[in-house]
Amino acid sequence: MVTTLTGKNTEVKFGQGLPTVIIAERINPTGRKSLAEELKLGKLDIVRNDAIKQAEAGAHIIDVNVGAVSVDEVEMLPRAIRTVMEVTDRPICIDSANPKAIKAALEVYPYKALINSVNGKEESMEEILPMVKESGSAVVCLTMDSDGIKNDVESRVKVARKIIARADSLGIKREDLVVDCLVMTASTDTNSGRITLDTMRQVVAEFGVSTTMGASNISFGMPNRDLLNIHFLTMAIINGLTAPITDPLIEGIIPAMRAADFLAGRDPYGMIYISDYRKK
Amino acid sequence: MVTTLTGKNTEVKFGQGLPTVIIAERINPTGRKSLAEELKLGKLDIVRNDAIKQAEAGAHIIDVNVGAVSVDEVEMLPRAIRTVMEVTDRPICIDSANPKAIKAALEVYPYKALINSVNGKEESMEEILPMVKESGSAVVCLTMDSDGIKNDVESRVKVARKIIARADSLGIKREDLVVDCLVMTASTDTNSGRITLDTMRQVVAEFGVSTTMGASNISFGMPNRDLLNIHFLTMAIINGLTAPITDPLIEGIIPAMRAADFLAGRDPYGMIYISDYRKK
Repeated sequence: MVTTLTGKNTEVKFGQGLPTVIIAERINPTGRKSLAEELKLGKLDIVRNDAIKQAEAGAHIIDVNVGAVSVDEVEMLPRAIRTVMEVTDRPICIDSANPKAIKAALEVYPYKALINSVNGKEESMEEILPMVKESGSAVVCLTMDSDGIKNDVESRVKVARKIIARADSLGIKREDLVVDCLVMTASTDTNSGRITLDTMRQVVAEFGVSTTMGASNISFGMPNRDLLNIHFLTMAIINGLTAPITDPLIEGIIPAMRAADFLAGRDPYGMIYISDYRKK
Repeated sequence: MVTTLTGKNTEVKFGQGLPTVIIAERINPTGRKSLAEELKLGKLDIVRNDAIKQAEAGAHIIDVNVGAVSVDEVEMLPRAIRTVMEVTDRPICIDSANPKAIKAALEVYPYKALINSVNGKEESMEEILPMVKESGSAVVCLTMDSDGIKNDVESRVKVARKIIARADSLGIKREDLVVDCLVMTASTDTNSGRITLDTMRQVVAEFGVSTTMGASNISFGMPNRDLLNIHFLTMAIINGLTAPITDPLIEGIIPAMRAADFLAGRDPYGMIYISDYRKK
């Protein structure tokens, strides 16, 4: 099963057994005051700049999230996406908790986007999945529902099953579902990494779908977070992660990802690993 | 199941769920001309030096192998072990293809050693396992036999089952078996990493035993081998590796291993990770 996204003259493919692709996470005001301030003023300089820097660093897909207090997402999300499209051809991940903002964003994006996200709540599935179907987009499926994020593998797998069944019933292709098994902080729960990875492993074994995750939650509250994020990515890559949401500017993350792909048999003969190494 | 080895006033424990320990690999003349030359002359300066350096770098167990052309292992292995014992209290891994050398080594080592190794060949099991039982040592069990190293998970698991059954029948404790699922070069076989890790995962699920592996084979023929070795170690740690045979002097390998242990839930609350980080 291969997920395909498109930008202007650009196609990005990912899936089980294929090389890992990066969904670049920086365009998100959560925890970034300067970006939140800028968006409130209707400015998009940081957005433009981050799109360029992340694409240059090796991002395959650009996540765009403008959700912050006092920001009208329905107006700003399409504007931010237009701005990103001016400076890079990489496909866009439309990231919002507001279905109206997603709808407005889809109207300005003429290619195949990744919508971030639907979850297992009835309301979410009812609002988001028809938009996915109608626009022919792909969608991130979060393994949480009205019971919140459960702390065991089987409960999370059940939520994945529920969303996948609903998407099936609407005629959305399996290849357009990108399951996110959710990463919780390991400093407060020693087993959280293992729960996420085991969930992903099981979802992949059962459905063969593409997967994503925001790796950086795992390291919250710990020193040397980059080291933890990089190694969690490696663990996830051997367990079926296809498209992490991460910051491609983290030093060493791209070589580590290339190493992990080679070791996991997702880069035959290390062609990409070696070619990247030679470029350095 | 917890494997315990001892040195002078020292106890090293490892097993599923516990922090990873390093079996330090440098004292081995394979591919190290200077050491081979020295051993031929009956000298042990490099051996002494490597024991000190590896222990200082954080090795938990010191592997001692003196197998080289024109070296009488039966004489040299006990001498090398005495030399290592003079400079460090870390437990010893007695590493030889020669059962007589292993026997001679056991006679000079008054603590609980790890014997490296037995395999699934009838002859190997007949020669090595009784020594393991009699000396009360632990033993590395290689998943290969008279058919060589098979290139699929099920065949390797079968060999592990065979050795474990034989050890059981001799009354050797399960906790004293350390299974090595064997690492082949990934540059010539794209699936070799995955085969090793899946074998390990299955052996651990079935028997709960301790495991080891020589990670560095994986990267043979590739550029930036240390990066590959470090990330393969991380993948193995999430799949049940308890005691890798590796070089603790590789830059960054110990912090990476601590990160992986924390992420895999083998270092609750990151106590070791944080304490190591603060020492830097």
